[in-house]
Amino acid sequence: MALIVHKYGGTSMGSTERIRNVAKRVAKWARAGHQMVVVPSAMSGETNRLLALAKELAPSTQTTAYARELDMIAATGEQVSVGLLSIALQAEGLQAVSYTGWQVPIKTDSAYTKARIQSIDDARVRADLDAGKIVIITGFQGIDDDGNITTLGRGGSDTSAVAVAAAMKADECLIYTDVDGVYTTDPRIVPEARRLRTISFEEMLEMASLGSKVLQIRSVEFAGKYRVPLRVLSSFTPWDIPIEEEARSGTLITFEEDENMEQAVVSGIAFNRDEAKITVIGVPDRPGIAYQILGAVADANIDVDVILQNVSHEGKTDFSFTVHRNDYEKTMDLLNSKVVPALGAEKVIGDTKICKVSIVGIGMRSHAGVAATMFRALSEEGINIKMITTSEIKTSVVIDEKYMELAVRALHKAFGLDQESAA
Amino acid sequence: MALIVHKYGGTSMGSTERIRNVAKRVAKWARAGHQMVVVPSAMSGETNRLLALAKELAPSTQTTAYARELDMIAATGEQVSVGLLSIALQAEGLQAVSYTGWQVPIKTDSAYTKARIQSIDDARVRADLDAGKIVIITGFQGIDDDGNITTLGRGGSDTSAVAVAAAMKADECLIYTDVDGVYTTDPRIVPEARRLRTISFEEMLEMASLGSKVLQIRSVEFAGKYRVPLRVLSSFTPWDIPIEEEARSGTLITFEEDENMEQAVVSGIAFNRDEAKITVIGVPDRPGIAYQILGAVADANIDVDVILQNVSHEGKTDFSFTVHRNDYEKTMDLLNSKVVPALGAEKVIGDTKICKVSIVGIGMRSHAGVAATMFRALSEEGINIKMITTSEIKTSVVIDEKYMELAVRALHKAFGLDQESAA
Repeated sequence: MALIVHKYGGTSMGSTERIRNVAKRVAKWARAGHQMVVVPSAMSGETNRLLALAKELAPSTQTTAYARELDMIAATGEQVSVGLLSIALQAEGLQAVSYTGWQVPIKTDSAYTKARIQSIDDARVRADLDAGKIVIITGFQGIDDDGNITTLGRGGSDTSAVAVAAAMKADECLIYTDVDGVYTTDPRIVPEARRLRTISFEEMLEMASLGSKVLQIRSVEFAGKYRVPLRVLSSFTPWDIPIEEEARSGTLITFEEDENMEQAVVSGIAFNRDEAKITVIGVPDRPGIAYQILGAVADANIDVDVILQNVSHEGKTDFSFTVHRNDYEKTMDLLNSKVVPALGAEKVIGDTKICKVSIVGIGMRSHAGVAATMFRALSEEGINIKMITTSEIKTSVVIDEKYMELAVRALHKAFGLDQESAA
Repeated sequence: MALIVHKYGGTSMGSTERIRNVAKRVAKWARAGHQMVVVPSAMSGETNRLLALAKELAPSTQTTAYARELDMIAATGEQVSVGLLSIALQAEGLQAVSYTGWQVPIKTDSAYTKARIQSIDDARVRADLDAGKIVIITGFQGIDDDGNITTLGRGGSDTSAVAVAAAMKADECLIYTDVDGVYTTDPRIVPEARRLRTISFEEMLEMASLGSKVLQIRSVEFAGKYRVPLRVLSSFTPWDIPIEEEARSGTLITFEEDENMEQAVVSGIAFNRDEAKITVIGVPDRPGIAYQILGAVADANIDVDVILQNVSHEGKTDFSFTVHRNDYEKTMDLLNSKVVPALGAEKVIGDTKICKVSIVGIGMRSHAGVAATMFRALSEEGINIKMITTSEIKTSVVIDEKYMELAVRALHKAFGLDQESAA
């Protein structure tokens, strides 16, 4: 007997028919003798519907004033889900009980709409499990010290599930989603993309931060901090496939690096086209210019991703960075109106038609020449690299957006990710 | 400055446009210097939508097993409403904060789907009012001693509002609804029906229990118990009518009987066609037959309204009662299969084409001949009376359903309810 946490996304909970299937799947695990905790998301579309109502009443773009009330409203989506799933499980003949975040309680800080979990009291849940009940807990939400409802931000139910698994010291946390695991890259772009049977926690963290949408990044951070065995698998397999088969499906996020003797050098290719590149040309090269430029950007609440400063020529340098495309106009305005005049720089140029492509793999730590292989593969396709940035287990390049698919396919092949042995 | 509780029904909260109008109305009262507590219902249709989802998953008619989960689900409708109204008030430039039943807290017993309020802690709400905030509290729900969410049953938001007004010792509780007050009878049947400017608590209680749908009966009971000044008024008047005019509109439920020197003998005519009449013919007239018949009916969870036993002839009597039409078939089956054979009665006959018409008025206590006036008026229209039942301040008759409108109009005229002086 093991203690297992299941998490189901909004699509899996999207209709009563689908909720019935979730109940049958959970019932299968319970009947196999496992203690079950289930964390479902809101029914698909529900959170958007609720926030759209709120937006109609608060047309101001400044939503922080209403943040407490937004959480009050948005938290109801998951509350409905847990009640419905509990009824579906009882209709299957099992004992089940649902709890909201505040009932557990899941304590968070007071940062409405993006709260962080601080502690989980598992006493009530454990008592129910010991009494033979399946426990269903709302994802996405908690309660702060003053008894206000808080939410964890979009995708927060992943984090809730991992946090509950950590608090309960669960044997495994299974994230059921609409893909059947973590792939070497997006199969819609590279048909040869393969599902990874395992991926290291660090690689998963890079993949999540680089644009892979399989898991919310904070849930991966949480899993790493508490070493929660985490598996991503499909909720679209028939609910009645043998439990042994299901328990081995999907992708397991691991913490033991030597678990796979034949660790691939590169595990996956991530990409996104959410960014825009901005270059300040002809900046006088003196100490503090990075701070003068990026400090002003940060003060405007704009996140910067890749940052690059070229060597200087004749006392002048060019300073480039990327921001989210939504922040592009705002950043350009800020630089042109304030930063460039103050710095005495020449001008600002921007490019919104870029993308970022990254290779990720813990094998890069011990293998030389990985970046060189990447650059050669891109070069052979005639793709010009605009920016490069590296970390211990990833290398990212910024290129023309139009080459994105070509680059991903070339890199996928160059690192042999279509070969079964790479897993 | 007064402390005022406003309650808004689901129709008033039915869209963001209507919620904005509610906010403007509440803002008007707050700007006039009043401390405001608002109890809104769920947006119209929302509770039905949620319960329909639950029903799809639990096709069994036996819903008591899922009652805790039904409350978990249904309570979210009001939670969304309070959040939205709080945002709308903040958009109007006012300070507002929303609370669920458990946050106040409003403590109830554990009778899921029909819980009763036990206590309300007003400390948090009072602190907010003193800090200049408008407080918005979910109707319809509370929390039991074990921290479970409970609901008060359909129309429970009226009760929540009155209970909050009682706990806060509010100066007045205003129930905004889709009619503009309590009428002498339903204006759709009698165009001459007049709005009552005041009605005594006891009359309101009878009207509510006899089929007037203006106020939920438990909210009237609550108002009576704590002597909460209660006003029913329209939410469809323009929000910007002068506050003095609005404060005098609708119908005030009063507790001082001598308030109106010219108290009418009869204040209103109530009616319903929800009942069916059942008669057990030829029952051996011995002690205990009422219990034998009605005990079996009560054991089957069927509510009985009017009960009537005729004098016996030759050791046999006929025993009649009314039940809700939804319970008619079930009751007939029960009597035919079990009760009649056990009693040695002759047979059971039923009639679903009946209605009950009642006259209500505290003046009946001190005026003789009121019932006689009623019977004469009906007789003059050729309407045959099938059953009669009386209490201190009401007289009800059961008649053929087809005569209902005719009877109501005749009685409305016979008691002079179309005359202004009757108010």
